[in-house]
Amino acid sequence: MPKVSVKGQNMPESPIRKLVPFAEKAYKANKKVYHLNIGQPDIKTPQVAMDAVSLHHLDILAYTRSEGSEGYRKKISAYYHKQNIPVEYNEIIVTTGGSEALLFAMGSITDVDDEIIIPEPFYANYNGFANASGINIVPVISKIENNFALPPISEFEKLITPKTKAILICNPGNPTGYLYSKEEIKKLAEIAKKHDLFLVADEVYREFVYGDEKHYSILQEESMAEHGIIIDSVSKRYSMCGARIGCLVTKNKQVLSTALKFAQARLSPPTFAQIASEAALQTPQSYFDDVTKEYKERRDLLIEKLNEIPGVKVGTPKGAFYCIAELPIKDSDVFAQWLLEDFDLNGETVMVAPAAGFYSTPGVGKNQVRIAYVLKKDSLIRAVEILKTALEQYPNN
Amino acid sequence: MPKVSVKGQNMPESPIRKLVPFAEKAYKANKKVYHLNIGQPDIKTPQVAMDAVSLHHLDILAYTRSEGSEGYRKKISAYYHKQNIPVEYNEIIVTTGGSEALLFAMGSITDVDDEIIIPEPFYANYNGFANASGINIVPVISKIENNFALPPISEFEKLITPKTKAILICNPGNPTGYLYSKEEIKKLAEIAKKHDLFLVADEVYREFVYGDEKHYSILQEESMAEHGIIIDSVSKRYSMCGARIGCLVTKNKQVLSTALKFAQARLSPPTFAQIASEAALQTPQSYFDDVTKEYKERRDLLIEKLNEIPGVKVGTPKGAFYCIAELPIKDSDVFAQWLLEDFDLNGETVMVAPAAGFYSTPGVGKNQVRIAYVLKKDSLIRAVEILKTALEQYPNN
Repeated sequence: MPKVSVKGQNMPESPIRKLVPFAEKAYKANKKVYHLNIGQPDIKTPQVAMDAVSLHHLDILAYTRSEGSEGYRKKISAYYHKQNIPVEYNEIIVTTGGSEALLFAMGSITDVDDEIIIPEPFYANYNGFANASGINIVPVISKIENNFALPPISEFEKLITPKTKAILICNPGNPTGYLYSKEEIKKLAEIAKKHDLFLVADEVYREFVYGDEKHYSILQEESMAEHGIIIDSVSKRYSMCGARIGCLVTKNKQVLSTALKFAQARLSPPTFAQIASEAALQTPQSYFDDVTKEYKERRDLLIEKLNEIPGVKVGTPKGAFYCIAELPIKDSDVFAQWLLEDFDLNGETVMVAPAAGFYSTPGVGKNQVRIAYVLKKDSLIRAVEILKTALEQYPNN
Repeated sequence: MPKVSVKGQNMPESPIRKLVPFAEKAYKANKKVYHLNIGQPDIKTPQVAMDAVSLHHLDILAYTRSEGSEGYRKKISAYYHKQNIPVEYNEIIVTTGGSEALLFAMGSITDVDDEIIIPEPFYANYNGFANASGINIVPVISKIENNFALPPISEFEKLITPKTKAILICNPGNPTGYLYSKEEIKKLAEIAKKHDLFLVADEVYREFVYGDEKHYSILQEESMAEHGIIIDSVSKRYSMCGARIGCLVTKNKQVLSTALKFAQARLSPPTFAQIASEAALQTPQSYFDDVTKEYKERRDLLIEKLNEIPGVKVGTPKGAFYCIAELPIKDSDVFAQWLLEDFDLNGETVMVAPAAGFYSTPGVGKNQVRIAYVLKKDSLIRAVEILKTALEQYPNN
């Protein structure tokens, strides 16, 4: 029997995948499960996007251009200009989700065995894309004690080798909710310029910022015109995760023409989803105001309630809709499984994402979980109550 | 300025990409261009698929399962059973187009520098996916003189090395229109078994077969249960190229669980497109009967008319909707550009796909073009008339 590849064997599983059978067991036992583990928002998709698809008048569901339709890209460019990010339509390649934008970026700027430096903890699927691309992630550790702030420049510079091709950040961050300050972006830009690296920023949570600090994009930083690559997506912005539309944005013409060749090989991004995404750009500001207000309230509530649990340590995320919480346990994989399999509070339990999958350094993050606040407030309150009781009863800490 | 990767530099361009500026020039000069170069069918998408999307009642455009919804996969399984291909729903991973199925297959079964043997000429984007995956295509040459029949087994065996992981065929073939006979599939299965290789079959044109011979799938061949991987897509079957839905099908559990990890990293295939594709499975047989009749008539007409041009050599494709034609010219890249830039017949010209891009052997296919018969019959007749006149006037042959 022919064998699968080493690359395939090394593909990481999603941090929650191994919990799925236990979640199914919990359902079968009629437990109600509060999902703190996923980033699928419960917010309604803007009606204007859904209607555009309902009212489509296509006879043939044809390919679009590989880089996305010109009309859509012009509207994306207008959106960026409104965010003070000076990007023209021909500096945008529409992709099948932010995932594909990341794959195209990795393919365009790295070869096998090259390295990318990423502040850790980071979005778990970066591990998968790096493995699929045959490259190595070199983590630079950010700490819960510092609320996951950018490590000092010296920490980055220690890690740079001739194989280093890029620094990748997620801003605001999944899973930490960390928002990089303008000063931190400038510092990163400085390292990128000094060592001739690309600076890749996953900015898919750009709108989800809750304090007074503003999001500062790497492409607002003029010096990053040739070095900067933005990974973007409509998934979270418009609660359209199932559209699978994102984009890769760069002013570097070589990267653009290279990424376009990857885009051509897969022909085109999905057509219906582009219709929805183009219409979504008409979403009124009031939608975002409401959504941001809602998430801010959820965040405040979640952090307040988590801080009331003895032994729990959690920072205050400034953006996105996740936080990393340290729990008074030894192994969050075991704890998450126990929550589903062996615990309930009046027939209810919670599902959390063990944080080790968000680190590439072995052994780190084992007493942490990622919590997404994509549930309504009363559910969040109840979920944290359950978590508190569970921690009291957990025999294994 | 940081540099793009060697992999990125080596990504091949689509065979027609460099012609696009010349096509745009032709449009600006108000020339009418008959597109013989593309595989975008002019056939209407089944109404049932389009209606399913119009009538969607989603509030949140959410992720689906990474492997596609269970409901859709069960219906795909029923479709395969109707084609006498015994495939169960949990042997199917829904992908973003056949393109992604191919990427997942390559990632699951090959490592960097591994080799895949492919009968040449082949679908040009195989070059792109192989380069993106860091593997090498080893072509086994099929010849226009033999109507692109499978080369003898000995030709394959000569090419097998310890790095060979798979044989990849496209059946019926793009760009040749070749349909492998049951005996040929059995021969390929024999080689795959003997040398412990995967046999990957891109069967996206399964329904487009015009003679008395029937399509024979690699998974109808029982001995290929562990070796066979089908790449499939709704793009051509239902004239839904813009959906971007395909699937990877295999009975090999290791390959399934490996490909699923690639699928999880990119979260899910597009949701609206899955709705359309699931509904498309209700398309009545009469649709396919009509479409096949139409393509058969187009094929017969195209081949007849091409054979009337002095110096043109063309086989008779048995399936798909392409043929490779040898023209009395030296370099089809130059000729194709000349057609757009310097030639017209009463304000009209044709665009063809130079065939060199469908070969990986350098220098082969330079006097060939790929012609797609996705135009209505009167347009096809006119297009071939224009081609004939062009060949008479071409100064450069």
